[in-house]
Amino acid sequence: MPDYQAEWKRFRQALNEVYDLRAAIALLQWDQEVFMPPKGALARGCQLATLSALAHRAFTAPEWGERLDKLAGADHAISTDERLLIAETRHDYLRATRLPESFVHAFAAAQSAAYEAWAHARAQSDFAAFRPHLETMVELARQKADYLGYEGSPYDALLEEYERGMTVAQLRPLLADLAAAQGALAGRIAANNPQPDAGWLEQEWNEEAQWKLTCRVLRDMGFDFSAGRQDRSLHPFTTNFDLCDVRITTRTNPRELFSALTGSMHEGGHALYEQGFLENDRRTTLAEGISLGIHESQSRMWENIIGKSLPFWKRYAPIVRQAFPGQLDAVTPEQFYAAINRVQPSLIRVEADECTYNLHIVLRFEIEVALIEGDLAVADVPGAWNEKMRRYLGIDVPDDARGCLQDIHWAHGSMGYFPTYALGNLYAAQLFEAMSRDLPELWSFVEAGDFGPLREWLRIRVHQVGRRKTAVALLQDVTGQPPSAGPFLAYLTRKYESLYGS
Amino acid sequence: MPDYQAEWKRFRQALNEVYDLRAAIALLQWDQEVFMPPKGALARGCQLATLSALAHRAFTAPEWGERLDKLAGADHAISTDERLLIAETRHDYLRATRLPESFVHAFAAAQSAAYEAWAHARAQSDFAAFRPHLETMVELARQKADYLGYEGSPYDALLEEYERGMTVAQLRPLLADLAAAQGALAGRIAANNPQPDAGWLEQEWNEEAQWKLTCRVLRDMGFDFSAGRQDRSLHPFTTNFDLCDVRITTRTNPRELFSALTGSMHEGGHALYEQGFLENDRRTTLAEGISLGIHESQSRMWENIIGKSLPFWKRYAPIVRQAFPGQLDAVTPEQFYAAINRVQPSLIRVEADECTYNLHIVLRFEIEVALIEGDLAVADVPGAWNEKMRRYLGIDVPDDARGCLQDIHWAHGSMGYFPTYALGNLYAAQLFEAMSRDLPELWSFVEAGDFGPLREWLRIRVHQVGRRKTAVALLQDVTGQPPSAGPFLAYLTRKYESLYGS
Repeated sequence: MPDYQAEWKRFRQALNEVYDLRAAIALLQWDQEVFMPPKGALARGCQLATLSALAHRAFTAPEWGERLDKLAGADHAISTDERLLIAETRHDYLRATRLPESFVHAFAAAQSAAYEAWAHARAQSDFAAFRPHLETMVELARQKADYLGYEGSPYDALLEEYERGMTVAQLRPLLADLAAAQGALAGRIAANNPQPDAGWLEQEWNEEAQWKLTCRVLRDMGFDFSAGRQDRSLHPFTTNFDLCDVRITTRTNPRELFSALTGSMHEGGHALYEQGFLENDRRTTLAEGISLGIHESQSRMWENIIGKSLPFWKRYAPIVRQAFPGQLDAVTPEQFYAAINRVQPSLIRVEADECTYNLHIVLRFEIEVALIEGDLAVADVPGAWNEKMRRYLGIDVPDDARGCLQDIHWAHGSMGYFPTYALGNLYAAQLFEAMSRDLPELWSFVEAGDFGPLREWLRIRVHQVGRRKTAVALLQDVTGQPPSAGPFLAYLTRKYESLYGS
Repeated sequence: MPDYQAEWKRFRQALNEVYDLRAAIALLQWDQEVFMPPKGALARGCQLATLSALAHRAFTAPEWGERLDKLAGADHAISTDERLLIAETRHDYLRATRLPESFVHAFAAAQSAAYEAWAHARAQSDFAAFRPHLETMVELARQKADYLGYEGSPYDALLEEYERGMTVAQLRPLLADLAAAQGALAGRIAANNPQPDAGWLEQEWNEEAQWKLTCRVLRDMGFDFSAGRQDRSLHPFTTNFDLCDVRITTRTNPRELFSALTGSMHEGGHALYEQGFLENDRRTTLAEGISLGIHESQSRMWENIIGKSLPFWKRYAPIVRQAFPGQLDAVTPEQFYAAINRVQPSLIRVEADECTYNLHIVLRFEIEVALIEGDLAVADVPGAWNEKMRRYLGIDVPDDARGCLQDIHWAHGSMGYFPTYALGNLYAAQLFEAMSRDLPELWSFVEAGDFGPLREWLRIRVHQVGRRKTAVALLQDVTGQPPSAGPFLAYLTRKYESLYGS
């Protein structure tokens, strides 16, 4: 190519503009869930539809194909980063061009309408009000799979969006194995062991004190409040408009001592990942998480492996006691640790313990695959949900608000997303095992509330990598192994045997 | 035209998309001033620059010209609303095509940088830190005037943006007359009359109680909180992303009892205007204020003519007393009324009384015209400011934070904006005089806290008109007179003679 530098500059500029548009879309969505007044929904749907179509158009214009082909085939000496940026952008471009603009437009509008309907339906526990919207989202997801193409199941095409290379054929046995091992562990605990005494949890917990506690822990984790913020929303989430503007949300519940804290640590783990991208990658394809599984490994490591450890509670027991004066005076770190790790099959996924969490995922995965493969009608979702809750968790679902309406994902049309939560658990344990080898004093750092060494380890090996490696390559490089369920099951067994002696 | 309906549909669709983009820009700006973490500024500047350029491009594509010409010249029977929408859109299109995209891009980026610099410079009272940014904004304003074209002063081209048809030649004598009449009135008050005793204002006012009071009054005014919200920001403003999503901001100061309340009523007046547009006009050129002068007439009518009236305080004295228990027990409605209308030449425009307010505008107008016409260097702005403060208001400026750094407008590059505040005062008085004729019991409604009849009068005659009339035509139709300073000066004289007996 005669003028590689000029072509490269045009490419960067065009790519930056696409990312600026995507940031505006992310802000429209964030505001919709955090601050928008209810009557604003109609116009917001139009705005999201228009901007989504524009962003799609800006990234699928025919000159992109030529431009990327030219850059990829250049005989000019290209740095590794340039080569990677071109390759990753090309991957996204090829995928994006498979979706017609009219489809992207319709999808965004349906998403917006479904979100409003879901929020309302959940509040009223009224599945019938959400049903037509879910039918639309399933139909659109199937169309999307057809546009994207697949070999095995249409669900594979949807999975690819969140976890490149993952398939139903790989996931089905993996999740079945996890379900069997975790179901057996939960069964042993239930059969052989009394629950720890946690009657002291049955109190009212001041929501403002909960909020302040989440901010304190986020600050300790290293979340940079000058490059991000925390707000409240119905369903906690993380988004960013830049590596220096990362927004997380949480929710407080006066009946729950731990849920705001664990929710904030979860989103805080996501946020540290996004604040940790390289400045040079800003407004490009490389300043993104590798896959949702890797993203989730960061949130779950902070929420569960660190936040539900005994050393963490040795540090934070006095701080939490101080946050709720007179309510926890006699509670020891060991009691906090035992209480936060109680195994109790429950209705709500986001509040499930680590022992039963993946069972919630198996249930959702099976329903999603059946919906997408056409083996289940939307009208039958509540029935299927309730039947599987009995089978996997042994509990009855009292209403759809605490059943199939509890999650936001289907309203967003995010079919194929849930399995990445289970993968996140596996990846987190595998990465943490490697970190423990590199930092033998890791638990003393946690007990001292000094998370710097852990964060830096993650920053260098995971965060700053951005999209430079696949999930499989990252895990291989950092842990010396391909993705595996071993470390996670070993971690779970170790934790619960020490807690329940089973 | 053979297929008017199809062409019309394409036009509406394209116009809607432009307005969706503008709504996203407004959200990026709102978030920047209300919630964005400080380090987010760099990326936000890029996002605003990209979206501004896109919105500009979307509205200045060559097909717009042909499309609008075709629609305007169609022999098809067109409704009045269609004709008006085409004409107003054509007006904006012709104006927009005069600005090259590269200029719009540069302007937005400079605006963002200047905003951050200004916020910092104001906090530190450090004009030198803001100076290079102001130089850039003045230079860009001059370039803008050159692109837009003008006959008399380049400042006319800038005024046109905010108040169509207004010129330096018209404004100079009008503002000079106002300054003379208001300066004389303020002088008479200072020379002949003791100030009302308002020592009771020198207390600490709980900021949460102030906030709740502003929300109460906004609700009473008819601000629809399900179609809008109020937040806090450094400088109060109103913006909207739709007539059902109107956002206002206010600020509380523990030393000031009235400033949050009057600020919220001011923005609330703007907000009622924007919530009052017709649903059919949504996402089009017609769902906009006629001019900033008319917009400001709505805010000032609520803030000053209503909010600083004796009937208003007969209603709200008990409510305000209750908001600050033990602090105002002996204060009568008459004392509130006298205190909120104290005439006291002061440093800060947004806290100025009605008697001296326009003097602040004259000062800014003269400096802006001199900057744009090249008669004043940016470095000399603090000196010119301080000299004029002595001349018009008789007071010394202790620092630039309370001097030429107090307003956000120049950081936004909004030269030509300030005069619309003075015009707003005139228009408000003129409209209110007409409303008083139509609603002889107006003040009893206010005293009963029943603002419905006033709001409905404004809704029908002003809000729902959108951009269907020019400012001059609206005033002529509603008040039977062209714009005039008479009603405002009569209102001022009447008010202050009854208060000060001068």
